Amino acid sequence: METLNQLGEQAKNAARLLSQAATPQKNEALRLMSQALVDHQETILSANQKDLAKAQENGISGTMLDRLTLNSDRIYAMAEGMRQVADLPDPIGLVSQMWTTDNGLTIGKESVPLGVVGIIYESRPNVTTDAGALCFKSGNAVILRGGKEAIHSNQAIVHVLQKTLIQTAFPPTVIQLVEDTSRASSTGMMTLNRYIDVLIPRGGAGLIKAVVEHATVPVIETGTGNCHVYIDKAAQLDMAKEIIVNAKCSRPSVCNAAETLLIHEAVAQEFLPVIEEALSAYQVELRADEKAQAILQHAVPANETDWETEFLDFILAVKVVSSLDEAIEHISRYSTGHSEVIVTDDYFASRAFQKRVDSAAVYVNASTRFTDGFEFGFGAEIGISTQKLHARGPMGLSELTSYKYIISGEGQIR
Amino acid sequence: METLNQLGEQAKNAARLLSQAATPQKNEALRLMSQALVDHQETILSANQKDLAKAQENGISGTMLDRLTLNSDRIYAMAEGMRQVADLPDPIGLVSQMWTTDNGLTIGKESVPLGVVGIIYESRPNVTTDAGALCFKSGNAVILRGGKEAIHSNQAIVHVLQKTLIQTAFPPTVIQLVEDTSRASSTGMMTLNRYIDVLIPRGGAGLIKAVVEHATVPVIETGTGNCHVYIDKAAQLDMAKEIIVNAKCSRPSVCNAAETLLIHEAVAQEFLPVIEEALSAYQVELRADEKAQAILQHAVPANETDWETEFLDFILAVKVVSSLDEAIEHISRYSTGHSEVIVTDDYFASRAFQKRVDSAAVYVNASTRFTDGFEFGFGAEIGISTQKLHARGPMGLSELTSYKYIISGEGQIR
Repeated sequence: METLNQLGEQAKNAARLLSQAATPQKNEALRLMSQALVDHQETILSANQKDLAKAQENGISGTMLDRLTLNSDRIYAMAEGMRQVADLPDPIGLVSQMWTTDNGLTIGKESVPLGVVGIIYESRPNVTTDAGALCFKSGNAVILRGGKEAIHSNQAIVHVLQKTLIQTAFPPTVIQLVEDTSRASSTGMMTLNRYIDVLIPRGGAGLIKAVVEHATVPVIETGTGNCHVYIDKAAQLDMAKEIIVNAKCSRPSVCNAAETLLIHEAVAQEFLPVIEEALSAYQVELRADEKAQAILQHAVPANETDWETEFLDFILAVKVVSSLDEAIEHISRYSTGHSEVIVTDDYFASRAFQKRVDSAAVYVNASTRFTDGFEFGFGAEIGISTQKLHARGPMGLSELTSYKYIISGEGQIR
Repeated sequence: METLNQLGEQAKNAARLLSQAATPQKNEALRLMSQALVDHQETILSANQKDLAKAQENGISGTMLDRLTLNSDRIYAMAEGMRQVADLPDPIGLVSQMWTTDNGLTIGKESVPLGVVGIIYESRPNVTTDAGALCFKSGNAVILRGGKEAIHSNQAIVHVLQKTLIQTAFPPTVIQLVEDTSRASSTGMMTLNRYIDVLIPRGGAGLIKAVVEHATVPVIETGTGNCHVYIDKAAQLDMAKEIIVNAKCSRPSVCNAAETLLIHEAVAQEFLPVIEEALSAYQVELRADEKAQAILQHAVPANETDWETEFLDFILAVKVVSSLDEAIEHISRYSTGHSEVIVTDDYFASRAFQKRVDSAAVYVNASTRFTDGFEFGFGAEIGISTQKLHARGPMGLSELTSYKYIISGEGQIR
């Protein structure tokens, strides 16, 4: 088994070559890798069976087992994802600005890869191909450290990708897997400053927190979404109902699902019973403040923790507020800065909300569920950043780049 | 003395107000603060005298004492710097992209402040007004933690700025100073994740290293410059000489000064004696590899450490290389990624160097000394980033911003 330092050094060398690659060669390699996934699906599926058997032995079930499971359809989807990344524009080598200084120097700002990207993730094998493809297309070598539950699947997938790369001009070390799935390999990546330019954790709040606390390499925090829907006094009942049902129930396990409903007191009496009925079709548990409890039929009392929690489940915190200001104040205090919505017909309320709420995505009259790289039109995403440094919100290929200044002169000195 | 948590909470609250401020109000406050520095220069200078007396007691001298010293001219320069920041365009509220999705959502990408910026710096009191002005203009509350040597000067300066802010609509807590200059306050800032959005260390390699190792808040590394000048075989002697003399000698204590000269073997015999003579006027010590030593009159042998070192002094490492590839290889191995130069008349060599060298600023036929926010035309700079995440090279007002997506719909759900 290769040590992290070996993987790091190989990645750094591979990144230098990959950074100079021409777009058609990168795209061709992506298409070959996509095809190889389909061609070798039996190998991947039988490796996945090993992971699934182990998972069942360990009593893993439900959502987690589902995330771990591969089948022919899912492999086709992974292959299709890689092919789509091949079709996206290359984010490297774009000179976004170029100007001439008073003394005649020409300065250009050119997009370049970040270098070596580390990804720490949990049990979803599709992250292996998604992250692999996005990093490859953006000229970055990637070191993947997936969860131990998926190790056989990940090994099989990366083996297929690397065997394909060997047939191209690219070193197979542009996409590498950390085969040691001990805690030490995870913490080791967090301090591999010599080789890793940025570390992106993808997973639950616990993983993100551990990375932020222990990493000395630069980190992009992703995917913690305590998202709010605020129903203003000037909202339409039907629209409010549809948006909250969609934001909460269409896929509660993802980070862009809503977790808290704030509703203006002027419409709470009329709207809450209708909303409760609509949510009852999904058996949503409501955790409400006193005022909301007085209106709702089946709510349990909310405590302080409920306002802070990303439930990722059919649970919704509900609070009645007396003003737009109180709604914004609540969001400012408890939000993770992911996505927030105001439902309103009031022009001034919509402007105030979008100006004053400081989250990655601030919506008027639409569901939080649109915070997604595909929905934004980025073609794919490596994650949703909830920090303000470098990238915020859905991260596509452009967010996996840095830049350098290229300066040309005729002997200028200062 | 306020605790870091108090300062952090005050900064966070102040940042929310400042983020909504109109440009003319911010500019007016900056001009008032600039004027107040001049009006209260006696107070600031007498505080500076205390710092200088203490420094002399402690045997501080030379460059460090000079950096600590204020006088009327320097205060005028600080005031002028603040006034110039008032004249720069506001980087906040710019919608750089806006598009409509297939389902009719309008998505805009709007620049917003980072929030709360922490600056840890050493003994230069002018950083207090420079960083204060840049953060203020870009809508960020700032927490300044200067070196203990300058504490009286910094207190006096921040007191003047805050007293001026009280006369405006801004809370004085938009610019705060950490008055506790113990090591604990420095490390405390590095883990103040609840309040600080980004930490920018400005100072020597030791400070930067400590921050990178201990910080859990996002950091932008600045200002470590092991910069290289490569003289190609197709270089002009006069231009090569002028560039290396300027890059090494015009201000050796700054990060954009050159530290290593690489020279092609085909021109080493002819060029090195001329360059040695030119550098001897500045009594530059040359630390050379064997081949260069054989040509130079007064060189000492270079060891491995010399290739890695940012001398910040009249010392230059010199190495003869046999090719452009060897030069690029050397830079890739030892550079801190700040600024590198090729001197050449060869079109293909110039392109290869700019493509393949992975540093913030890659020059053809110009001095490394131009890597500077003012020289780039940014109007001012908060530092020079040597990392790839978020910002690279000279950081002006734009680099102190993040963005958010503002999304408007008519009830769209997914």
